[in-house]
Amino acid sequence: MNTTEIASKLVALCKQGKFQDAKVLYAPEAVSVEASAPPGGQRESVGLAAIQAKGEWWVANHEVHSMQVAGPWPNDDQFIVGFRFDVTMKPTGQRFMMEEMGLYTVKDGKIVREEFFYSGGA
Amino acid sequence: MNTTEIASKLVALCKQGKFQDAKVLYAPEAVSVEASAPPGGQRESVGLAAIQAKGEWWVANHEVHSMQVAGPWPNDDQFIVGFRFDVTMKPTGQRFMMEEMGLYTVKDGKIVREEFFYSGGA
Repeated sequence: MNTTEIASKLVALCKQGKFQDAKVLYAPEAVSVEASAPPGGQRESVGLAAIQAKGEWWVANHEVHSMQVAGPWPNDDQFIVGFRFDVTMKPTGQRFMMEEMGLYTVKDGKIVREEFFYSGGA
Repeated sequence: MNTTEIASKLVALCKQGKFQDAKVLYAPEAVSVEASAPPGGQRESVGLAAIQAKGEWWVANHEVHSMQVAGPWPNDDQFIVGFRFDVTMKPTGQRFMMEEMGLYTVKDGKIVREEFFYSGGA
């Protein structure tokens, strides 16, 4: 798949909440970078297994009330996707709006890097 | 100024339509990259003079009816800003919505790179 096809597929899966299914679009050595480190975690997750573990931690710790996915906006071998979640953080019971932009880099038909942009980061 | 301050300043100036004033935030050697080349132009503009010339071409060729600027969303030394313009392309009289994301990279207190993401690009 080219970058446009991967971007469209990723957005379609995310809109359906199928974040784990989207992992077939990633290279095994893909890197995921957060704007700030999650509690007890690192900003960078290296490799698909680490990215999946981060995703599982997120799902286990958040209750999603509603979600909006916008884009993609492409440029060359990269594209941006917008995310807006109405969530409750399960351990604290705190409900808040999470708004972030994901910047994805494609190489050889796979996502090799994702970077999440949001306020409150480093 | 640090990345967060530059991002806030850029968004504030863009919301006021002061795109030319925002150029003080750029390094002289800054590079601007479009998702697709404008008519008769290149995807990449190298140096502040070339970036200003591109901006002047845009202003001369578009009538802006309304504009929304969203963000910034930061990550480390980069940040993303969202733009939505309701414009008429003066030479053709065609009115359309332009929606794009700008990815900015900061180094030594100045913007050194801006990349615009939108559909219809390369």
